[in-house]
Amino acid sequence: MNKDTWYKGADYFSQDFCISFKVNSTIHKEKSKYQTIEIVDTPAFGKMLLLDGFIMTTDKDEKAYHEMLVHPAMTVHPDPKKVLIIGGGDGGTVREVLKYPVNKITLVEIDEKVIETSKKFLPELSKGLNDPRVEVVIMDAAVYAKKAKEKYDIILVDSAGTRGPGVVLCEKEFLNNTVKNISPDIWVAQSESIFWGNDFRKTYTTTLKKLFNIVRTYLTYILSYGGAWTFTFASNTLDPLIPRREAKGKLWYYNTVVHHAAFQLPEHLSKTKSENFSYFK
Amino acid sequence: MNKDTWYKGADYFSQDFCISFKVNSTIHKEKSKYQTIEIVDTPAFGKMLLLDGFIMTTDKDEKAYHEMLVHPAMTVHPDPKKVLIIGGGDGGTVREVLKYPVNKITLVEIDEKVIETSKKFLPELSKGLNDPRVEVVIMDAAVYAKKAKEKYDIILVDSAGTRGPGVVLCEKEFLNNTVKNISPDIWVAQSESIFWGNDFRKTYTTTLKKLFNIVRTYLTYILSYGGAWTFTFASNTLDPLIPRREAKGKLWYYNTVVHHAAFQLPEHLSKTKSENFSYFK
Repeated sequence: MNKDTWYKGADYFSQDFCISFKVNSTIHKEKSKYQTIEIVDTPAFGKMLLLDGFIMTTDKDEKAYHEMLVHPAMTVHPDPKKVLIIGGGDGGTVREVLKYPVNKITLVEIDEKVIETSKKFLPELSKGLNDPRVEVVIMDAAVYAKKAKEKYDIILVDSAGTRGPGVVLCEKEFLNNTVKNISPDIWVAQSESIFWGNDFRKTYTTTLKKLFNIVRTYLTYILSYGGAWTFTFASNTLDPLIPRREAKGKLWYYNTVVHHAAFQLPEHLSKTKSENFSYFK
Repeated sequence: MNKDTWYKGADYFSQDFCISFKVNSTIHKEKSKYQTIEIVDTPAFGKMLLLDGFIMTTDKDEKAYHEMLVHPAMTVHPDPKKVLIIGGGDGGTVREVLKYPVNKITLVEIDEKVIETSKKFLPELSKGLNDPRVEVVIMDAAVYAKKAKEKYDIILVDSAGTRGPGVVLCEKEFLNNTVKNISPDIWVAQSESIFWGNDFRKTYTTTLKKLFNIVRTYLTYILSYGGAWTFTFASNTLDPLIPRREAKGKLWYYNTVVHHAAFQLPEHLSKTKSENFSYFK
């Protein structure tokens, strides 16, 4: 085994732990205004998009992430016609939303180079971005939220919450502005790993609870994110455990039993302990 | 960051992927008759036991593995008095079983050096091994199974199935002998990762289905095993979705909702596709 072909992923746990993987080749690498964007080809995961060295999405398991970000919200809402996506420039989230008969999707992405890269190298993810129902806004979502006037049924936050340009999208001001100006029925955000990012999730959940009556975390298995990932679902009226209609389209990960199972947390993460949502003490 | 302090775990996926972690110090290292045994101290996982470079157990997440191996079987069985553990020399599985009022636990471990190492360096795991109800048999479990006469209510297979000295414990002959001679009400085995080991699980499940009426796979989040791990539950009469009593003891991972949720598989692993139980195509 030639060690030189290995790529050590960006470190989790304050540089104590990471995922390493073999790389066949670097397909694309550029430094945008906001971050370093890379597409690499790997034997384990297929093509992989990295931002500042962190794995964002891979051929092999992107469906687990994108389906679980999108379909719980889209099946719990009785009839969503307008969906706002924060981040998500690779297009995977758009692709899943387009499986439903929506009228409009607005995607607010700060870095147009991510969109360009995905369009060029990840067609399976980005193919929905050219759909006529999709409006792409290249803008800092924090700025967008401040002056937003249009209402959306669902907001999906698909940005790297604890690092890079998306950090501001987890802060109180952005949450307050977005909810006040857009008043979505459902808010779903990726909310970092089950195993780390506990501090992030605690703060984020606390803020969301001031804005929504129902706030629940749910779990998904995603190998390239360290095995387990969380999403947070928030709504004033819609219980995430009551899907109101069938999911649409061909699905690889999501199904109705998984929808329900995903909200059942291990004891150490359970509701009664949500103020100390901690895998590692 | 000093790269020299990093330890690259044994490779998964035919050497295409692995977990890397920082190591503070190697506490113990020896070559037994069967394998290389290591105890290392890590900032991310605390103390860690490795066999031939594969992570077997860590301070930080061993409870997820041991609780989910033990408590589903112990709560579904109405009154287990005798439990046979195959492998499990570190003692973690014994510790969990001892939370119930059993009369006898027999642990069959091939490598006494694993037991000695755990007793010396992992007291939290191994403390139950000295309980008077525990009989430790140092023997190849394949040999043990051939001549076994004693009946057990539950068999728990806690061995590294696809590598090392435990490979034989996944083969048809061992399964046939064990079930014929011991006739357990419940069989639970660790059955490798949700993400790889598909070939292993397919063969294993097929063999178990010839011996038991009910065979179901369930899932658990374990970071140091790559995030997600599977167990396989088999019984002729006891449905794993019907626990018959409360779990005992202080628990970190297992609870009743997780028990049920664990059996709900993502679409690509779902029951209808069990003959092609594959995460990676």
